[in-house]
Amino acid sequence: MMRTLYHYTLCPFSRKIRLILAEKKLDFDLEPEKFWEKREEFLHMNPAGQVPVFIDLNGTIVADSYAIGEYLEETYPEKQFLGSSSIPRAEVRRLTAWFDDKFAREVSLPLMFEKTLRRYMREAGPTNSTVIRNAKATIHFHLQYISWLIDRRNWLAGDDLSIADFAAGAHFSVVDYLGDVPWDDYEPAKEWYMRLKSRPGFRTLLSDRLAGIPPAPHYGELDF
Amino acid sequence: MMRTLYHYTLCPFSRKIRLILAEKKLDFDLEPEKFWEKREEFLHMNPAGQVPVFIDLNGTIVADSYAIGEYLEETYPEKQFLGSSSIPRAEVRRLTAWFDDKFAREVSLPLMFEKTLRRYMREAGPTNSTVIRNAKATIHFHLQYISWLIDRRNWLAGDDLSIADFAAGAHFSVVDYLGDVPWDDYEPAKEWYMRLKSRPGFRTLLSDRLAGIPPAPHYGELDF
Repeated sequence: MMRTLYHYTLCPFSRKIRLILAEKKLDFDLEPEKFWEKREEFLHMNPAGQVPVFIDLNGTIVADSYAIGEYLEETYPEKQFLGSSSIPRAEVRRLTAWFDDKFAREVSLPLMFEKTLRRYMREAGPTNSTVIRNAKATIHFHLQYISWLIDRRNWLAGDDLSIADFAAGAHFSVVDYLGDVPWDDYEPAKEWYMRLKSRPGFRTLLSDRLAGIPPAPHYGELDF
Repeated sequence: MMRTLYHYTLCPFSRKIRLILAEKKLDFDLEPEKFWEKREEFLHMNPAGQVPVFIDLNGTIVADSYAIGEYLEETYPEKQFLGSSSIPRAEVRRLTAWFDDKFAREVSLPLMFEKTLRRYMREAGPTNSTVIRNAKATIHFHLQYISWLIDRRNWLAGDDLSIADFAAGAHFSVVDYLGDVPWDDYEPAKEWYMRLKSRPGFRTLLSDRLAGIPPAPHYGELDF
């Protein structure tokens, strides 16, 4: 049996797990899941009806990107991305939650929903341009914060590459696909994202294409 | 120096940490924080501007309830609430995320915002009754799921009381304060919540009162 990750191409939480798996050098199959169609077999694996869902070699099913990230750290500890002791780990987790919670709510999920998911979902009405405008205004605050951190640290949570970078990179990659990241105003953030893009796991994200919605022209370029 | 938890009375994430601290028998001071006023000293502790923020005996500042919960498990492991190995821990974390993410988004945060925070926040307009109606409709699905789990398990994630119960109990306690939990239709969920209410840490939640917004009459009763 092969490891499997059920995902949606532009889901930032799925992308975070793809990055972690690649950095840990764990092979896996990627299964696209139209989670909005609520397929019965999928709901059996995850009653929350969300991606990502991970299936390990022994058949263990883990749902939710927070649970999967922690599970992979515990199960495959050869390469660690959470930090070496409780205080640095708290910083990695704080920043992971920053992007998976705050940035997701304020920026990446509204943009992804308005610009992609609305097309597939039955109950969804027309695009809400106010939501898009608010998300594009708020992203400046987050780019400032990343720049502030990268002026002081090698990676977001400290000296070492961590799940916080994968979470942030995953969310930014979605917004960048949609062409909505004003990188040029934030040099340190741009430099951080360029470093992250050259990581092995990032390459597959950069070759993703959504049917009918092409990425921004610079999306796949390693040097912008 | 005393341990300190910055919180908001009806914040479910703060309540989850209050329950964990109490179950671990760790003394702490509770500091109310009007986080919507964006006090500068508070933003220095947590630039995300959210409660809870925890300060440990040695001055370590930990922000975000996911980071705090994991930090407390690692730092004070005498009584553990995450499970003993990676697979049960994944189940605790999946269900914790269910309530902190899905239930929060669909039920507890919309109700808390509409019924309490709107009164304090400058930018907030009048109550949105559609939001309240949707949240009160969706809670049935969650009560069904809790009942389904409790028909099969002693606590939500398995044999043992875990952070998943504290997360779920914290969110339900907020909705119960507001009088919006239709307990009587869901006996197993009701029985689970009664067991949880009798835990030592729950007592202080049940004596909480919000100025100008009294709780539902049964809120503080241990046997409903």
